[in-house]
Amino acid sequence: MKEADIKALVAEIEAAWNTHDMQRFASCFAEDADFVNVVGVWWHGRREIEAHHAASHATRFRQSRMRLRLAGSREIAPGVAIAHVRWTMEGHQASGPRRTTDTRLGIWTWTLQAKEGHVEIAASHNTDTLSPQPA
Amino acid sequence: MKEADIKALVAEIEAAWNTHDMQRFASCFAEDADFVNVVGVWWHGRREIEAHHAASHATRFRQSRMRLRLAGSREIAPGVAIAHVRWTMEGHQASGPRRTTDTRLGIWTWTLQAKEGHVEIAASHNTDTLSPQPA
Repeated sequence: MKEADIKALVAEIEAAWNTHDMQRFASCFAEDADFVNVVGVWWHGRREIEAHHAASHATRFRQSRMRLRLAGSREIAPGVAIAHVRWTMEGHQASGPRRTTDTRLGIWTWTLQAKEGHVEIAASHNTDTLSPQPA
Repeated sequence: MKEADIKALVAEIEAAWNTHDMQRFASCFAEDADFVNVVGVWWHGRREIEAHHAASHATRFRQSRMRLRLAGSREIAPGVAIAHVRWTMEGHQASGPRRTTDTRLGIWTWTLQAKEGHVEIAASHNTDTLSPQPA
């Protein structure tokens, strides 16, 4: 799997998020993809991924903007790669594990598979990078 | 990849955690494994995974007990599988994204690879399953 194809996928996810086009967003995922979000909810399949993101982009993420950066990737088998993507989000309503409107930072693991000439996300797991809370 | 082998790995991780044997725990991971923990810290490789877990098991997880349950798995390529493991933790000191001593629940995504007749974790990403915080 070419790093250029992974970078193109990162750019596509970012563009889909920032135009709030959740059909475009979901099309980056495999039909049977798994998605674990930042508060530990597990969605099954592209249709669920689209529906839940469409709901959040109609509300708390309606004016959010995300920036993504590919932090690392490696192929673990022919046509299968693991990628780590760091992100920042602004413009959201209270969200994330600490329900904050502050800028959020996070890290997102993707397990990628090559399929019919393109790359899609088979499994996705996302987490906010949190500084320790004051005691 | 046989589901029985994945279940055996789940049991091994659980036993290693509950005996606080972090060398045993780390040996379930590939030498170059990625590990993203519940507050978004990314560790690289078996050695880092062992060192950081040994530190936390000397402190906040010293008396913790974890129960793991394989919630789902599927092979996405020959010798590569995605597994989702649900867990509960008790007996810990304040920890997790909300620094709680309450029972913690979570979901853990593993990307698994078969290697030399056994199964190891190539990528691991873990998240607390959080109920919404009171506003």
